[in-house]
Amino acid sequence: MEMNQKIVLASRPAAWVEESNFRLEDCGIPQAGNNQVLVRNHWLSLDPYMRGRMSDAKSYAKPVAIGEVMIGGTAGEVVQSNHPDFVAGDKVVGALGWQLFGVADGGALRKVDAGTIPLSAWLGPLGMPGVTAWVGLLDICAPQPGETVVVTAASGAVGSVVGQLAKIHGARAVGIAGGPDKCRYVVDELGFDACIDYKAGKLHGELMAAAPEGIDCLFENVGGEIFDTLLTQMKPFSRIALCGLISQYNGAPYPMQNIRAVLINRIRMQGFIVFDDLSRWPPALEELTGHVASGRIKYRESVADGLAAAPAALISLLKGGNFGKQLVRLA
Amino acid sequence: MEMNQKIVLASRPAAWVEESNFRLEDCGIPQAGNNQVLVRNHWLSLDPYMRGRMSDAKSYAKPVAIGEVMIGGTAGEVVQSNHPDFVAGDKVVGALGWQLFGVADGGALRKVDAGTIPLSAWLGPLGMPGVTAWVGLLDICAPQPGETVVVTAASGAVGSVVGQLAKIHGARAVGIAGGPDKCRYVVDELGFDACIDYKAGKLHGELMAAAPEGIDCLFENVGGEIFDTLLTQMKPFSRIALCGLISQYNGAPYPMQNIRAVLINRIRMQGFIVFDDLSRWPPALEELTGHVASGRIKYRESVADGLAAAPAALISLLKGGNFGKQLVRLA
Repeated sequence: MEMNQKIVLASRPAAWVEESNFRLEDCGIPQAGNNQVLVRNHWLSLDPYMRGRMSDAKSYAKPVAIGEVMIGGTAGEVVQSNHPDFVAGDKVVGALGWQLFGVADGGALRKVDAGTIPLSAWLGPLGMPGVTAWVGLLDICAPQPGETVVVTAASGAVGSVVGQLAKIHGARAVGIAGGPDKCRYVVDELGFDACIDYKAGKLHGELMAAAPEGIDCLFENVGGEIFDTLLTQMKPFSRIALCGLISQYNGAPYPMQNIRAVLINRIRMQGFIVFDDLSRWPPALEELTGHVASGRIKYRESVADGLAAAPAALISLLKGGNFGKQLVRLA
Repeated sequence: MEMNQKIVLASRPAAWVEESNFRLEDCGIPQAGNNQVLVRNHWLSLDPYMRGRMSDAKSYAKPVAIGEVMIGGTAGEVVQSNHPDFVAGDKVVGALGWQLFGVADGGALRKVDAGTIPLSAWLGPLGMPGVTAWVGLLDICAPQPGETVVVTAASGAVGSVVGQLAKIHGARAVGIAGGPDKCRYVVDELGFDACIDYKAGKLHGELMAAAPEGIDCLFENVGGEIFDTLLTQMKPFSRIALCGLISQYNGAPYPMQNIRAVLINRIRMQGFIVFDDLSRWPPALEELTGHVASGRIKYRESVADGLAAAPAALISLLKGGNFGKQLVRLA
């Protein structure tokens, strides 16, 4: 009989996350109660928001408790179901956390088609990252054809969808990414109009070349000095979808100098979390599924092998070491 | 025969404005051309935005050129009219600048009722400051009854109207102002629920007392450390109308630490300028005129006497030395 394994939060990070903040534990396979479903997880999604849940600073969601299994999105296969909508063998996505087996109420799982679309895609372009991109770009930034969209962390799970969706909707897409390989991928594979390697140290100058008339829509994932520089290039009446500040999650906040641009250029800046309005998920997934199935939206995955590899993979993600959607293969 | 006098921009300020940045000049009275109107100005409005026009840094409006008359809103009396809508003796508001006499196209002047309402009010609660308050509060912040509105520079021309309008619309109004006299006025005369004297050095603690559940709407006029502190007390899904950053107009920008709050609390922050959408002026003035005429909206003026006093009065305004709407009496 297979055993369950889980990774729990052992301690809270002081600044950068360390592997010692986690502990791998053997444990029993949980029992599905009334209306519940037992799932064998095949894929665990690693995402920047996890850094926030490891901290007990005030945020939009409760922190993970010490000793509790780390939260996380998962995709897997139903082992046993006490819920009428699911049978053994169904492929499902949910948030069962960093563990091999998990139990959830049926209402908290979503059955997905893993025939024509790989199961892992439901954690990437067809999961939380994809819907985040769709909501932030189309609901908040709302680019008009011909407008210039800039997205940071452009090769990542969210950013890659933002730029491709921007192109599909007739806008120009300019990515910011770390390193020449990611930038080449963003332009050559994903079809962005331009990509700026912020590690080359010429962000401002290259931005003037890539977006000479300025930025209409900024989809911001990174924060810090990059965000502060981008603020200086926003056009009048431009929009900022503030999705993440990954550069700020592990230390002191970067002192922003250019907030005055929000006033001068009458910028609308909106922070958002994709779970705030669940009614946006169905239209988002309807559009995204079509684009992924047809190959119009491409995606790339960084895969770590086995649950024990998850802590190092999250640490790497927080430092920009991933290339595309970071996943952990659990089966 | 009376002569005209004007104040021109003599030089651009490096940091704080100095009197030597201005020059008073005698000059002839201009001639009204076709469809134009000659006006004797009675009141000149001094406003924080003027600091921006003295600088040639990129902004939302062209800078005043060296040697050009300083721009500014004015209220006065028609001396001679070549426009069918105006006759000598009409009271008008316009933007004739820092001078005793000015000429404008009839379309750039607004005839006002100076019978029941003092002429100077058309530069304050019924002028640009009042409409700014109305647009930022009602269009951008859109407070619901019972919500908490915080406004900085609360005793000023804009802030005083923001808080009184908030109360009229059923919200709680908390002001931030400099010094006990201004705070007393804001609570006792204007009817705000509370006012915090930021000069007392206990902003954070007093904010927790005055807005224990946090801020739903922030109408921001000041910027800097005060704004950065207020950001930490914003509620989820709160709104910020970014109207001014007067603390930042004369030196290096304050390094903002708490922009992360915009993400965590899904704040919508909108920079705005009251001239962006002129279609909002008629409904704003309709509501404001009723409130001013009935005494529901009170206002206070700081009056400097004579054109020559304008430079010192603007410098004082930029340092928070005014108490209420800063005006210069020209006649």
